[in-house]
Amino acid sequence: MSTGFFGDIEPIRYEGPESTNPLAFRHYNPDEIVAGKRMEDHLRFAVAYWHSFDWQGSDPFGGRTFDRPWYDGGMEKAKLKADVAFEMFSLLGTPYYCFHDADVRPEGKDFAENSRNLSEIVDVFERKQAETGRKLLWGTANLFSHRRFMSGAATNPDPAVFAFSAATIKTCMDATMRLGGENYVLWGGREGYETLLNTNLGQELDQLARMLHLVVDYKHKTGFKGAILIEPKPQEPTKHQYDYDVATVYGFLKRYGLENEVKVNIEQGHAILAGHSFEHELALAGTLGIFGSIDMNRNDYQSGWDTDQFPNNVPEMALAYYQILKFGGFTTGGTNFDAKLRRQSLDPQDLLIAHIGGMDCCARGLKAAARMLEDGALETPLAARYAGWTGPLGQRLLDKGTTLDQIHDLVSTDAINPTPVSGRQEYLENIVNRYV
Amino acid sequence: MSTGFFGDIEPIRYEGPESTNPLAFRHYNPDEIVAGKRMEDHLRFAVAYWHSFDWQGSDPFGGRTFDRPWYDGGMEKAKLKADVAFEMFSLLGTPYYCFHDADVRPEGKDFAENSRNLSEIVDVFERKQAETGRKLLWGTANLFSHRRFMSGAATNPDPAVFAFSAATIKTCMDATMRLGGENYVLWGGREGYETLLNTNLGQELDQLARMLHLVVDYKHKTGFKGAILIEPKPQEPTKHQYDYDVATVYGFLKRYGLENEVKVNIEQGHAILAGHSFEHELALAGTLGIFGSIDMNRNDYQSGWDTDQFPNNVPEMALAYYQILKFGGFTTGGTNFDAKLRRQSLDPQDLLIAHIGGMDCCARGLKAAARMLEDGALETPLAARYAGWTGPLGQRLLDKGTTLDQIHDLVSTDAINPTPVSGRQEYLENIVNRYV
Amino acid sequence: MSTGFFGDIEPIRYEGPESTNPLAFRHYNPDEIVAGKRMEDHLRFAVAYWHSFDWQGSDPFGGRTFDRPWYDGGMEKAKLKADVAFEMFSLLGTPYYCFHDADVRPEGKDFAENSRNLSEIVDVFERKQAETGRKLLWGTANLFSHRRFMSGAATNPDPAVFAFSAATIKTCMDATMRLGGENYVLWGGREGYETLLNTNLGQELDQLARMLHLVVDYKHKTGFKGAILIEPKPQEPTKHQYDYDVATVYGFLKRYGLENEVKVNIEQGHAILAGHSFEHELALAGTLGIFGSIDMNRNDYQSGWDTDQFPNNVPEMALAYYQILKFGGFTTGGTNFDAKLRRQSLDPQDLLIAHIGGMDCCARGLKAAARMLEDGALETPLAARYAGWTGPLGQRLLDKGTTLDQIHDLVSTDAINPTPVSGRQEYLENIVNRYV
Amino acid sequence: MSTGFFGDIEPIRYEGPESTNPLAFRHYNPDEIVAGKRMEDHLRFAVAYWHSFDWQGSDPFGGRTFDRPWYDGGMEKAKLKADVAFEMFSLLGTPYYCFHDADVRPEGKDFAENSRNLSEIVDVFERKQAETGRKLLWGTANLFSHRRFMSGAATNPDPAVFAFSAATIKTCMDATMRLGGENYVLWGGREGYETLLNTNLGQELDQLARMLHLVVDYKHKTGFKGAILIEPKPQEPTKHQYDYDVATVYGFLKRYGLENEVKVNIEQGHAILAGHSFEHELALAGTLGIFGSIDMNRNDYQSGWDTDQFPNNVPEMALAYYQILKFGGFTTGGTNFDAKLRRQSLDPQDLLIAHIGGMDCCARGLKAAARMLEDGALETPLAARYAGWTGPLGQRLLDKGTTLDQIHDLVSTDAINPTPVSGRQEYLENIVNRYV
Repeated sequence: MSTGFFGDIEPIRYEGPESTNPLAFRHYNPDEIVAGKRMEDHLRFAVAYWHSFDWQGSDPFGGRTFDRPWYDGGMEKAKLKADVAFEMFSLLGTPYYCFHDADVRPEGKDFAENSRNLSEIVDVFERKQAETGRKLLWGTANLFSHRRFMSGAATNPDPAVFAFSAATIKTCMDATMRLGGENYVLWGGREGYETLLNTNLGQELDQLARMLHLVVDYKHKTGFKGAILIEPKPQEPTKHQYDYDVATVYGFLKRYGLENEVKVNIEQGHAILAGHSFEHELALAGTLGIFGSIDMNRNDYQSGWDTDQFPNNVPEMALAYYQILKFGGFTTGGTNFDAKLRRQSLDPQDLLIAHIGGMDCCARGLKAAARMLEDGALETPLAARYAGWTGPLGQRLLDKGTTLDQIHDLVSTDAINPTPVSGRQEYLENIVNRYV
Repeated sequence: MSTGFFGDIEPIRYEGPESTNPLAFRHYNPDEIVAGKRMEDHLRFAVAYWHSFDWQGSDPFGGRTFDRPWYDGGMEKAKLKADVAFEMFSLLGTPYYCFHDADVRPEGKDFAENSRNLSEIVDVFERKQAETGRKLLWGTANLFSHRRFMSGAATNPDPAVFAFSAATIKTCMDATMRLGGENYVLWGGREGYETLLNTNLGQELDQLARMLHLVVDYKHKTGFKGAILIEPKPQEPTKHQYDYDVATVYGFLKRYGLENEVKVNIEQGHAILAGHSFEHELALAGTLGIFGSIDMNRNDYQSGWDTDQFPNNVPEMALAYYQILKFGGFTTGGTNFDAKLRRQSLDPQDLLIAHIGGMDCCARGLKAAARMLEDGALETPLAARYAGWTGPLGQRLLDKGTTLDQIHDLVSTDAINPTPVSGRQEYLENIVNRYV
Repeated sequence: MSTGFFGDIEPIRYEGPESTNPLAFRHYNPDEIVAGKRMEDHLRFAVAYWHSFDWQGSDPFGGRTFDRPWYDGGMEKAKLKADVAFEMFSLLGTPYYCFHDADVRPEGKDFAENSRNLSEIVDVFERKQAETGRKLLWGTANLFSHRRFMSGAATNPDPAVFAFSAATIKTCMDATMRLGGENYVLWGGREGYETLLNTNLGQELDQLARMLHLVVDYKHKTGFKGAILIEPKPQEPTKHQYDYDVATVYGFLKRYGLENEVKVNIEQGHAILAGHSFEHELALAGTLGIFGSIDMNRNDYQSGWDTDQFPNNVPEMALAYYQILKFGGFTTGGTNFDAKLRRQSLDPQDLLIAHIGGMDCCARGLKAAARMLEDGALETPLAARYAGWTGPLGQRLLDKGTTLDQIHDLVSTDAINPTPVSGRQEYLENIVNRYV
Repeated sequence: MSTGFFGDIEPIRYEGPESTNPLAFRHYNPDEIVAGKRMEDHLRFAVAYWHSFDWQGSDPFGGRTFDRPWYDGGMEKAKLKADVAFEMFSLLGTPYYCFHDADVRPEGKDFAENSRNLSEIVDVFERKQAETGRKLLWGTANLFSHRRFMSGAATNPDPAVFAFSAATIKTCMDATMRLGGENYVLWGGREGYETLLNTNLGQELDQLARMLHLVVDYKHKTGFKGAILIEPKPQEPTKHQYDYDVATVYGFLKRYGLENEVKVNIEQGHAILAGHSFEHELALAGTLGIFGSIDMNRNDYQSGWDTDQFPNNVPEMALAYYQILKFGGFTTGGTNFDAKLRRQSLDPQDLLIAHIGGMDCCARGLKAAARMLEDGALETPLAARYAGWTGPLGQRLLDKGTTLDQIHDLVSTDAINPTPVSGRQEYLENIVNRYV
């Protein structure tokens, strides 16, 4: 039964690249086989509850622009919101969604009321999932919006906030498990600092690790099969966020013995803010063995804050999916649209159109990436470039028994004087442009 | 015997804050006791050979502007350069200097000639050190300027370049040891990539670690007592450099079991390029136990490349020395001026004046930092802010036996509902401004 | 009669640099004569109503953190807010304040109600000004927060929004005049675009100019003696803001014949976001003859959004006041603290402390700048550097009768081959460090 | 007669999108008609002499990597270079090229020798143009590489440098005219400052305008029909460059009465460095009536310096050509590849491949842009969005006779209370993605 929010509308269908219907897919065809798997099973699309249903269009210089019937309310409004949300998931055919506790339940006056509210909403979601076949990609706790978290959650100078945060995480992990969620995510929006002048860096990092150990232990205790994921971001809202980027998170995990327990959820916009390309962060996570999931979006290259736009640049997206496929594709992870409408995009249909565009771009990117891999378009020249390392000199250098002075003698004796060879970057870029 | 390069000039002396003599110190007074130690022993100033004696004023859009009598020559010119360099060290009273092999010796046609040239110059330096009392803070190998390193040194796709680089490092470590150097530094200017399209990230990281193990093993074998230091930089000349920042280097070291063997040499300008404040990088290195030394300079905040200017902002420098003192001050490390004249600063005296200004600013920063620490100006409020973690709740939360569900029950039962308290950032900033 | 908001507190007094009283001035001494004028008359401090009394501590990732008794109310709360505001002005001894209409009056349901509310509050302000001796530095209209302005005010695609904006500006100019305001400011927070795809750039620029002409005509018609000021900002909230920086505003004014009617209000943080130093924007505005006033604050150099922090870096501030003094100091303009507390700075006293710190830093900067000017510390070497342009060659080149081929012949005949001379940047930086 | 530099190779031909030949065009088909004109006549491709034939692969951290037979020589080498250059133009089928004097002639010891050398090379070029049918898109003077220009050319504190620069410009304008060049370009690489401390901003801007007046007068005197173009860039090599961006150049031209005499040559990479998108700069120049030509390249979004890469992102390029076509396409201007190989791209073929890729991407962008315009895909919704301004309210607001208080009364009386409508950004982005 339709809520009527989106008007009189049919589920979005694939109509092929020539379609000019703004409410049809031109490239995303869920059942089409790409690299041996259905497109839907590759991409594992999820809608982000917060951006699509909770963000009201406000920014630091202006208030709410959207007008949704579920704003400003308690439990009844939260249920109406859930009705619309699941309706949208079904219209789009996105198999997954993601949420924070604060996205879905009314804010209570204390922990107990928060817990009751969340529990009531989880009942609703359970029923809706059963009705619609939609699934939870990941759940998470919002430990950054309420003023109690202003100085951090796990890293708060006040242990009471740590306790409150830990308790909240438990309720959110429980909710995730009840809903069959495939991952649990931690984004440390306030786990960082505004100024070093009032910050004990070492103490706060230890607190952060302590919280993560509690989470991992609870996962094992409860038998949760999903992945625990950290979402890196360099800054904003804080001046410095501890989970700066993939490399930083990896070092943190190693330091506290958590590198086999926790993976990363990588966002395009956060990569950009940290000074990296999206594909860099993906390649690094793949290399380090901690790749988990992605938050697909786009940061405006000329804006220095998190713009969370819907993605639209296919060549860039192809390089991202290339890295994902290269490291084996998603397992528990997926493509979560951590993207919000521009605040001037007021209409309900804008929500559909934005997701359709994003899904189509992902599909184009995925198909290009798959074909590049199938053709060995990049991997064949790459293997050739490093071939020397499988030869006798390369092997000898890598042999742990070889010492620096032995190599020195080798260079001296054999008068090794290497000759540069072309890196062929433009050639490879042209190759990519054959596929995108 | 003077080379005459600096004209008829006396060693620079401390004349006190009221002096208007551009060739005198106004704040740096080597023998003055600060926090129980001579200023000279705190700051451990070093001159960077490359910037002061090799850089010719060129930039990507223009050629040489400086006119030095030692340019364009072979061994004789290299020796003249050394004469002027040590003369400058003595005029300034900087106890230390730092160099790359390529700064001090003529470039040879191959490894053998490079080695001979280096050896000959090290003889000269040995003698000059003895004559002048100057010391080597650290040596390093230039594995980025010659075209053979264009695709990396340790991380080159060609193992022959790895071998050449390893052999070169050995000669530079030997030179460092002969000269009594107190550290050996690795800056991986080409250890990164221009494009992921032609890069095997995992392979290259393994190669980088292999080289570092060779270096560490050689250190132990030879009994070198100095520290091995990596210098982080996020990018430039490459699009991405593997030693991006302190956190990244730490993760790399942990991954390859090197975190107790290698420390970091932190540069202000590199911190800025990585999106961090200088004091952040220092605080993090101190916290992680890998702080080694600093490259003192200043990056222009409006320029997106490495400007390597002489430092001049005392309040910022005070915060940097504050972190250094807080973690115990330098041991083997020191304050190396990795700073170059602006290319329009043509005169020999500009070299002296730039260093004098930098040294004076460091002295002001150090004194302010020492007084802040002595007064507990920041540490007292800091301890108060985190006091809860030493109380019963804090201790219980940190206790490894406490579980997430126990904390949940605690919050539920005790109805913990934390009250935010002011972070007092402006108050603390005003305090700092009492000292700078 | 005290509101009690700040507790039991005396007006802030100058106690001299040795004072450790956090509620005293250490450098700002209103009656002290600097360069022939009272410090208060130089600096002309103003408090920004919006940041100090309306901002609630929210950011894009979190809600209100502050707790003020005047939140969430109508006219009575607005009057309480005014009581506290004027109390703070008096405690601090800031002679001026600045406001937007939306800061001071409750938001009405339409234009008529907004106008009535504003008028009622202006009555209150008039009385309070008389009681306290505080004055209005400038007034302005908030044409960016309400959703009706989401696509621009003057540059809105809908002429009805232009009309609404123009009408609002009239009420705000009237209010400014009633209160004896010395300037009227326009900041075009939404005068820009989110995407060129839906933007008619030429049309919007014409609309913006049309509005400005309306404003200027109204100024002349009403006999308002104050200056009309545009406040440049490059972006945020929009992707691109038309009043990007001083140079852009100047070109806009010239294009529409307004360069003698409108000046600029320059903000440090906006300068930084546009890729400029604060002193650059000031020097350029002075050179172009459009310097009006400043919004004093500080943008975090590592953050890509408008952080609006209280200023604290004296050396940088000295260079800013140097430019202001060099071009004659403020006339109608002044030093408005467009700065907000960090959202963790919850306490009423934080408001006082932040302003005290900012005022003290301004005072230090001003005094250093004045002494540099008095000593000709920078102007004397500057004049020497350009002396050639007052000589025969310089004069001949500047003579409008001289042609390119004549100069060519001159160079050929006289074999002019110029010799570079040192730019002495480090020498000049050391000079500045004698003063700060 | 082939120089043999590119080996045994045929002119590059169009083979269609399915071709996998790296030495063929897949999209650029010179004679294909797009929007009523041959593709070649739309795009007007030019090769940049400096990047392709003079840059040697050096960067701030490393020396020459390329190995070309014409390096390190005098006039004979310069002629060999010209042979190879024109051979490449012919192989690629690029109708145009561009050069600075210093790119094509050996550097002389003084002005006279520079002039003679240039003249000799221009003789060669004249002959080669006749032989090959290649044409000069624009000429320019290199007034930034030689040390005499280190403190500026037109804006130098030393009038002798101004004179030298003016004389050099004359020789370059003469050369441009002899070769039938269609534009003359000025890029002020050193027309800016390193520090305000040694800079007289007002004096330097006046000098810059004086030089531009000399150039414009000489153009009129000689009857040169081409356009005079300024190339904006915000910084690098200097901290601040006076021709910061299109808006800044426009303001400068207006200030000195040159806005009808001079247009702009817009570079993608310079737009990015100034904080703008390429299409923004194009749209603004079109709006202001000063659009001239483009330097097509790509700046790495994660690098803070001028990377001058070959372009490869078709969706972005389509938006750039969309603006160009919207304002009528090129007249005297064209698409100059101001792009250089990566320094690891050592092979002669890399030069061809890089240009082929760039030309193909331009062709794809152009075709997409032309179709969007033909379909009114963006212009139709744009016109609808602003339709109100042609209605009665819009016309009344724009009527110069309408005053601010009249508009105020209108809003009051009619109770105008505008309703926001969706900006539909995502919808428009999806539309663009139908074309790219």
